[in-house]
Amino acid sequence: MDESRFLEQYDIHRFDVPLTTIDVVCFSLVGETLHLLLARRAHMPFHGAWALPGGFIDLAVDGNLDDTVVRKVAAKTGIRMSYLEQVETIGNADRDPRGWSVTCLYLSLLDPQSREDQQVDQKHETRWVALDDLDALALAFDHDLLVEKAVARLRSKARYSSLPLHLLAETFTLQQAQRVFELVLGTRLEKKSFRRRLGEAAILEETGETLATRTRGAALYRLRPDHREHLFPRTIG
Amino acid sequence: MDESRFLEQYDIHRFDVPLTTIDVVCFSLVGETLHLLLARRAHMPFHGAWALPGGFIDLAVDGNLDDTVVRKVAAKTGIRMSYLEQVETIGNADRDPRGWSVTCLYLSLLDPQSREDQQVDQKHETRWVALDDLDALALAFDHDLLVEKAVARLRSKARYSSLPLHLLAETFTLQQAQRVFELVLGTRLEKKSFRRRLGEAAILEETGETLATRTRGAALYRLRPDHREHLFPRTIG
Repeated sequence: MDESRFLEQYDIHRFDVPLTTIDVVCFSLVGETLHLLLARRAHMPFHGAWALPGGFIDLAVDGNLDDTVVRKVAAKTGIRMSYLEQVETIGNADRDPRGWSVTCLYLSLLDPQSREDQQVDQKHETRWVALDDLDALALAFDHDLLVEKAVARLRSKARYSSLPLHLLAETFTLQQAQRVFELVLGTRLEKKSFRRRLGEAAILEETGETLATRTRGAALYRLRPDHREHLFPRTIG
Repeated sequence: MDESRFLEQYDIHRFDVPLTTIDVVCFSLVGETLHLLLARRAHMPFHGAWALPGGFIDLAVDGNLDDTVVRKVAAKTGIRMSYLEQVETIGNADRDPRGWSVTCLYLSLLDPQSREDQQVDQKHETRWVALDDLDALALAFDHDLLVEKAVARLRSKARYSSLPLHLLAETFTLQQAQRVFELVLGTRLEKKSFRRRLGEAAILEETGETLATRTRGAALYRLRPDHREHLFPRTIG
């Protein structure tokens, strides 16, 4: 039997296959507090519980996993994301009561303007919840663990990358840049050494504009073009 | 209908589910050349082609994805791995001729002694191939791309972690440590600055023993206990 005939006869269900999904922890700053996006589950299991946006791959529609992520978040929350990266894939027999389940976990960052421009769709039961208020919610599945993993990734990358800057608007002052790193890391940073490290990293450029402050104008910066990590910085699919 | 009744009636096949697999790029040094472990495919598709060890989750046997990785590599090559981490999950409609397919890619490092102790099982068609000789092989599926991603991860982590040291025996000289970073990064390093950085990282401890060299004894080091990343350094499952 040659391979083309074999493939014609192939029955996908001869294999035991796990449920395979994607889930997204989408972070945004509301004021100075890190929030994340939740959607209320409209179906069983965990009907009515709050959960990360995510769900099943549509094999007929999605070309790759990224497509699934964009499609499911838009469908469940109405939100278009601006930065996305994979965190980890979790698969085991216990995380979903329907059976063996694999989820590919993503992290997304949304700047405050984009968040405000995209009012959470009223047809979806969706909300931005402060990270510190999560304990009261009892998320569906193992989503508390997934949030933990995404927060750990965000904090870890704050130590060696420009990732937290994607929580700011496109242009920002150095003081705002320092503040967003402080909020993510949960610690105060020393201004002089922060600015030296930022300078060494050579990832910012001046916009030529200033932000009026109480005493004087503060120079506005943006990420240099080669350091703007757009949606899907890596080819995942 | 309550949730328990719903679950009883649940038919996993009401969802389109992709094929979901794991694949492992297992690196080891043979002399001074980075090699990786391949297994010849015993079944269609790509029957007879060389491929990364990996395969399907056994829902009845595997508790989590790590279990699948250990089981499949042992079954296909006879090798027990000593260090393992997840690299990335790749899912799309094109990578497997049988249909939409997701693979969770792992990276493994095996020290030379463990590799020699575990003679590749003769009942498996398995081989260690030099990274530079891969081009001649035409690996199955998208496994060339998977190897690329694992090599990129190994090189990237060589810049900010102790990962390459897991390619060495348990104890090693500072010269051997420098050499393994040079081999992974593909570049010569300056001895003085390498040793300063290694010292600052504070990840090594002296064993108290020396390795006899041509002119004098060289002190032997090992990773400090809190920096030994064992099999499954992260809780993935």
